[in-house]
Amino acid sequence: MTHPVIVTPSTFLSHWQGHRALTRRVIEAFPEDNLFTYTAAPPMRPFGTMAWEIHQVSELTLNGLLTGEWTEPDWREGTSTDRARLLREWDALSARLEAEFPNVDLNFFEQTHRLPWGEMSGWAATIYTIDNEIHHRGQGYVYLRALGIEPPAFYER
Amino acid sequence: MTHPVIVTPSTFLSHWQGHRALTRRVIEAFPEDNLFTYTAAPPMRPFGTMAWEIHQVSELTLNGLLTGEWTEPDWREGTSTDRARLLREWDALSARLEAEFPNVDLNFFEQTHRLPWGEMSGWAATIYTIDNEIHHRGQGYVYLRALGIEPPAFYER
Repeated sequence: MTHPVIVTPSTFLSHWQGHRALTRRVIEAFPEDNLFTYTAAPPMRPFGTMAWEIHQVSELTLNGLLTGEWTEPDWREGTSTDRARLLREWDALSARLEAEFPNVDLNFFEQTHRLPWGEMSGWAATIYTIDNEIHHRGQGYVYLRALGIEPPAFYER
Repeated sequence: MTHPVIVTPSTFLSHWQGHRALTRRVIEAFPEDNLFTYTAAPPMRPFGTMAWEIHQVSELTLNGLLTGEWTEPDWREGTSTDRARLLREWDALSARLEAEFPNVDLNFFEQTHRLPWGEMSGWAATIYTIDNEIHHRGQGYVYLRALGIEPPAFYER
């Protein structure tokens, strides 16, 4: 007897990783001197700053799903303007996600958790993390276009 | 015996509708004379044009999930520059989604479907539709900021 579902854990993991791979390409597409300085529409932040936020929130989410502890990140760690360091931490988290997401207790997705920004289900916390990444990456696409740079294809993951 | 899942159909529907409600507020936030003409970064399209695309792809997706037929939209229908008409069609589709999404056969999400732009699972087709909406709406946020307008809060759905 099968139980059809909207999405299985392994397919959901692939979905998340596909977005992470695309965002990584967007980080790489920026000229290094623009990544942490350029904005197409003040007071919006540079894309590199948004990318650090995505990284820190993603790490918080993975840790929260695994442990039930949702500790607010130290945002000062996201102020580095070193792209190589950002990419190293990005890749390390992608590797952790690949290895550790399958260990998440599925019950966590329906349960309510206390995040630094409010109470929500594990599903809501996780999909918000991915949606926030898509949202800011879409903004990065505008920045790239405004800089005359063709962004990576959205449909490639 | 319960079967924990990443997301239930009703929670997924709420997720989708929350995004539709936010995108609707972004459509409304534009000055009417900018919605179908303004771009912050040529050759990017005006937000109103993106919103019609979101509408037509969302309609295609709901129809496909219900019937197994994924017919390419007539894109000429998405060239209207009448915001009131866009919002009427938007609301009509939200009402259909609310009423008809619960009728989708859950097996459709895992099955492979032939869309106008390739073969993919029902899950992939559906989440791509929502992700594409988030992506373009994020771009609309930049347009609004560039026009000096505060966009609706991303976290409110």
